[in-house]
Amino acid sequence: MKARVYVTLKPSVLDPQGRAVQQTLGRLGFDDVADVRVGKYIEMSLAEPSDEPAATGMDRASDAVAERERARTRVIAMCEKLIANPVIEDFRVEIVE
Amino acid sequence: MKARVYVTLKPSVLDPQGRAVQQTLGRLGFDDVADVRVGKYIEMSLAEPSDEPAATGMDRASDAVAERERARTRVIAMCEKLIANPVIEDFRVEIVE
Repeated sequence: MKARVYVTLKPSVLDPQGRAVQQTLGRLGFDDVADVRVGKYIEMSLAEPSDEPAATGMDRASDAVAERERARTRVIAMCEKLIANPVIEDFRVEIVE
Repeated sequence: MKARVYVTLKPSVLDPQGRAVQQTLGRLGFDDVADVRVGKYIEMSLAEPSDEPAATGMDRASDAVAERERARTRVIAMCEKLIANPVIEDFRVEIVE
């Protein structure tokens, strides 16, 4: 299972890196760029839990949904503990596969 | 018009930052994370071109498609010139709104 995490500065927080990118783009001739915000994009591979019995049909489908929800909860906990700074950053989690 | 750019290290390039995040997550008890790759996520606001005559109906719809394609071409040029390092990084562009 894979997770994608998007970490962005909160809208009220100044982004000097984004400002530098915007100004440099302007000097390169891209003067139609009104605003740039730079965040982080993190891809993670999560190990599949192996201690569950094999399921079939409807069970397998609902297991997959439950497993995605468990993965989402774990990744949100990772963001809150380590990956994002909740004082200045927002984050969004996507579970894929 | 807004653009989103995702910049990722090419799969063959080592990612020490991602490795450090993975090891730290492991020490925090998240030992089911098999791999972490850290990239950049950039949001841009592009100014609307104002020198075109107003259009209606079908013209307006096809204009919108053409405008998005022009915006995509501009943002790809920005990535190739400044935002991404094409030797070690891949990028993906999304045009929204």
